[in-house]
Amino acid sequence: MNTPDTDRNARHAERMQRKKAVVDEKIAAAQNERGVLLVNTGNGKGKSSAAFGVVARALGHGMKVGVVQFIKGRSDTGEEAFFRRQPDVVWHVMGEGFTWDTQDRARDVASAQAAWEQARALLRDPAIGLVVLDELNIALKYRYLDVETVLADLRARPAAQHVIVTGRAAPPELVEAADTVTDMGLVKHAFAAGVKAMPGLEF
Amino acid sequence: MNTPDTDRNARHAERMQRKKAVVDEKIAAAQNERGVLLVNTGNGKGKSSAAFGVVARALGHGMKVGVVQFIKGRSDTGEEAFFRRQPDVVWHVMGEGFTWDTQDRARDVASAQAAWEQARALLRDPAIGLVVLDELNIALKYRYLDVETVLADLRARPAAQHVIVTGRAAPPELVEAADTVTDMGLVKHAFAAGVKAMPGLEF
Repeated sequence: MNTPDTDRNARHAERMQRKKAVVDEKIAAAQNERGVLLVNTGNGKGKSSAAFGVVARALGHGMKVGVVQFIKGRSDTGEEAFFRRQPDVVWHVMGEGFTWDTQDRARDVASAQAAWEQARALLRDPAIGLVVLDELNIALKYRYLDVETVLADLRARPAAQHVIVTGRAAPPELVEAADTVTDMGLVKHAFAAGVKAMPGLEF
Repeated sequence: MNTPDTDRNARHAERMQRKKAVVDEKIAAAQNERGVLLVNTGNGKGKSSAAFGVVARALGHGMKVGVVQFIKGRSDTGEEAFFRRQPDVVWHVMGEGFTWDTQDRARDVASAQAAWEQARALLRDPAIGLVVLDELNIALKYRYLDVETVLADLRARPAAQHVIVTGRAAPPELVEAADTVTDMGLVKHAFAAGVKAMPGLEF
């Protein structure tokens, strides 16, 4: 006679066998290898940090990585300090701060366009395995950059190159063109409960 | 007489001034400094990579970081290769693979509990500024670990220590206890369109 524990283990093994069959079948069906366009959008935390986590992952595989930060809130970010020390990373930051700090549309447009020139150079370089376009969605939302120009440059990139675009309010044209899209939903945030943006966690 | 462009710039400056006032007020209201408990859950991509991005960020601020991976799908991940090279990172991996590979509940429970012992040691060490408990939610979902034990250890950690918990299906008790919770929602995924999990991007 089986004990309840033996029964539980047997049910577990059976359930996991079924799950493994499903997972194995999906893996067998997904065999295309190519550069992926990934978009991290939504109002929650994690859009940029997920991109930076993939930068670490790519470096671990010996890839070269280019990052362009289109909107920059502060000059003391941990990610910039850390990744600028890595020999396989190229890191560009658009000149000005957040749009609500500059309050000058013409200057923002010029900065965004200069930053896009840097992005375009990375998108034409097959030696760069991963390009991160951090907060590009904000520059698109304010129409500092033309979405069709951006999409044309993304489509023309080397076939094996991965690109990650971050920022709230990804335009529908970009979502349509992307392979993988995550909407980072805000469930709750420490900031709303009065906790200051903490170094190492928020910047 | 104003040109349409001057009008547009004036409207932009006014809108940004209002936005800056709102942002400045929120920043002034959020002045508590303490360790934050962050949970990345949901079905989309980015839960673990967002945690690894914060690891890079914390290292950039000179913090020490501990990572425990509770569920591990493969042995060749870029994040592990990369972060094991960093002197300020302690990296532990739970012995076995995914649950649907082992199909042995008793062995999974023992592995998860051994991994929790490693997590607990990090959660008691005030020299560690950030602890990442990667895929802990899966171990909780399968009840390999008791959620009350986990919460008690999280509550007892040093006051300035940040913790990030990742994995689908975060239990409600953990969401309740957390300061910041993001639900990474799947909008679309390249895998479903037949693209293989790509090194540097997915692992």
